[in-house]
Amino acid sequence: MNACIIVIGDEILSGRTLDTNSNFIAKQLDLIGVSVTQISTISDNPTSIVNKLKESFSSDNDFIITTGGLGPTQDDKTKQTLAEFLSDQLVLNQQALDFITRLYCTNGRTMNDLTRKQAWVPSSSEVIINRYGTAPILWTKKSNKILINLPGVPYETQAMFKEFIIPKIKKEFNLPHIIRRSVIVVDYPESELAITLTDWENNLPDYISLSYLPSGARIELRLSAKGFNKTILEEEIAHEIKKLSFILDKKLISTTTTNIVEIIADFFSKNQLTLSIAESITGGNISRKITSLAGSSVYYKGGITAYCTQIKENILKIPESFINTHKVVSEEVAKKMAINCAKLFNSDIALSTTGVAGPGSDEFDDSVGLAYIGLYFKGITYVKKYNYPYLTRDEMITWITNKALELIYFELIKNK
Amino acid sequence: MNACIIVIGDEILSGRTLDTNSNFIAKQLDLIGVSVTQISTISDNPTSIVNKLKESFSSDNDFIITTGGLGPTQDDKTKQTLAEFLSDQLVLNQQALDFITRLYCTNGRTMNDLTRKQAWVPSSSEVIINRYGTAPILWTKKSNKILINLPGVPYETQAMFKEFIIPKIKKEFNLPHIIRRSVIVVDYPESELAITLTDWENNLPDYISLSYLPSGARIELRLSAKGFNKTILEEEIAHEIKKLSFILDKKLISTTTTNIVEIIADFFSKNQLTLSIAESITGGNISRKITSLAGSSVYYKGGITAYCTQIKENILKIPESFINTHKVVSEEVAKKMAINCAKLFNSDIALSTTGVAGPGSDEFDDSVGLAYIGLYFKGITYVKKYNYPYLTRDEMITWITNKALELIYFELIKNK
Repeated sequence: MNACIIVIGDEILSGRTLDTNSNFIAKQLDLIGVSVTQISTISDNPTSIVNKLKESFSSDNDFIITTGGLGPTQDDKTKQTLAEFLSDQLVLNQQALDFITRLYCTNGRTMNDLTRKQAWVPSSSEVIINRYGTAPILWTKKSNKILINLPGVPYETQAMFKEFIIPKIKKEFNLPHIIRRSVIVVDYPESELAITLTDWENNLPDYISLSYLPSGARIELRLSAKGFNKTILEEEIAHEIKKLSFILDKKLISTTTTNIVEIIADFFSKNQLTLSIAESITGGNISRKITSLAGSSVYYKGGITAYCTQIKENILKIPESFINTHKVVSEEVAKKMAINCAKLFNSDIALSTTGVAGPGSDEFDDSVGLAYIGLYFKGITYVKKYNYPYLTRDEMITWITNKALELIYFELIKNK
Repeated sequence: MNACIIVIGDEILSGRTLDTNSNFIAKQLDLIGVSVTQISTISDNPTSIVNKLKESFSSDNDFIITTGGLGPTQDDKTKQTLAEFLSDQLVLNQQALDFITRLYCTNGRTMNDLTRKQAWVPSSSEVIINRYGTAPILWTKKSNKILINLPGVPYETQAMFKEFIIPKIKKEFNLPHIIRRSVIVVDYPESELAITLTDWENNLPDYISLSYLPSGARIELRLSAKGFNKTILEEEIAHEIKKLSFILDKKLISTTTTNIVEIIADFFSKNQLTLSIAESITGGNISRKITSLAGSSVYYKGGITAYCTQIKENILKIPESFINTHKVVSEEVAKKMAINCAKLFNSDIALSTTGVAGPGSDEFDDSVGLAYIGLYFKGITYVKKYNYPYLTRDEMITWITNKALELIYFELIKNK
């Protein structure tokens, strides 16, 4: 089955707002095997909306999904336009009105006429109560197609789409199941990996497809199985992943998640180890990534952003003379930062970063783009040097963060 | 003048990749007064491309801009399709070939047939050398419209669009200048602000327009002046901003930037003050925001992510008994964290956060969504309580980070 997405909003056409709704909706539809054939962003005005709806209804899409343009201030125009397009009229939907009234009572706000107008919908539309806001979601059957109108607020639209629209589509249409599983391979050039896997790949059942998705030094191998018997699909995918584990052995570092922070968390909790981080160039970004995962407090003791040299001296206890001799951006300082961080936080493993993100050089005249990452574990400290002079400040921080996360599993996990 | 943007790519339709190119291009065009009327994302195949080009050429857009679909592996199909659409044929462009060859030499890579094919372009197209990659950018005049074909790689497309396409459009077309300036107002409800500014707004020259852009507790007032005499526009906007400064006085906290981190940086460096941060719930995110700005090392001494209670005890020196009495997520602990952070880093001002980001409660059974932010300055500590039980973990971290940054200027800057 096919779908098209219509994003309604002048603020997107002017570049003021980045549209993330269509990406979210496309991803969710892809998971249930509905293909998106086109995404259109159009202006908030009735003519554009009607023209695009007409065009979409004459296409071969089964679903036409709109986001935005349902706000109360443009209510008159947009919903009236929609009703006219459907050769219908607006009626008061009591269920929607009750919900909006309840929502306003709970928040101690006073309803006004604009809010009440939100409850008026085309009479032929099924209303799906929007649990996260006041604009009801509309589901309308017309000419053998389904038109779904969602609000523009990403929080409302994305939550409602995943929790209510996707299950409703799955319930009302006989879609095949799509089961996806990924494994993460490290330390294997893509072309060599492809050669190693040739025989296995050629013998995959025809309802299982394979994608190579490289990201940094990792490759995600994604298996997708499509069919009507969910149990068989799951068994077959599990069976193929078992074969892969056998072929790839230690190069395969995860069969359960593709998120490197989760892989690291898994390693730390399995081995009952703790981590701490001393960041200079990355300024707190690695810490933020680690703590983005719920439950990270089990293994993550904490971190220090030792942004000025003085803090490296006073808190990380690296002597001033040592920093002056080796320069703040050096293998030696990265090493010392990692060792002393482990001591300060009393952690088993410690990570450190030092470098110049630019655009200017540091006080030691180190060149922009130079960075060191240190990793301490059981008396041994690994240090890696990086040089990315062509990156912007933000890109540099992101890259060094990724490299640091990868270093943890390269040095620790793969040699476990 | 009008433009439409065509984004070519199956990976965007499947939701695997978030399109950021169209947002960037729309923003850049908006700055020079070109309106985007529609953005379409379509499949990588020749039929979709030709259909969309035909449709766009029959619209009233002056510019048709495509991104993606120029990669060497689909070269045969896409560029051949483009040539056919233009009733043209592909020819070898020597300048493009020379550039690609030089690029390959510099990087020590070997050219192959696919790479050489990148230099074949429609004979009627003007080639703009892509300084950041191998796919040449095409600028073609047809039926009184300009067709611009850009690659899909965001880094290449966005840099080239800003550095070469925008200046070329400005040079070849007599576009009016658009001068934009924004001021940031705090502590002023939007409706009251509108009433205060009524007279001033009514007396704005007709070539200057005003937008209210609220964001958190701030309101950005954006003035846009459009006309052909740049000097006059700049003078008039400066003149209106002077009037605004007079009317709004201390409520107007910046006339130079809308970035809160820059406003904070400006405050700290003007007053020669230093900052340190002790983060628990935000996990390093505030530190990361502060260090995202080049030159932040002048006032930012550093931060600590005191993620587990033990670190709050051992490094921030908050007694275990104190934490147990008050609970780790409490006004008292937030206060103590800020005071002790200032001591530890020897900074004038210190910020602290403690809270429960969820999805589970902490060891003291505090409810998810509860958080405190502490701010220490000259012997006084301010603490604010927040409760956002409906936010996801990530949203909670983002919100508390924003609130913390706002708190700095509310408490310090506005009372300066």
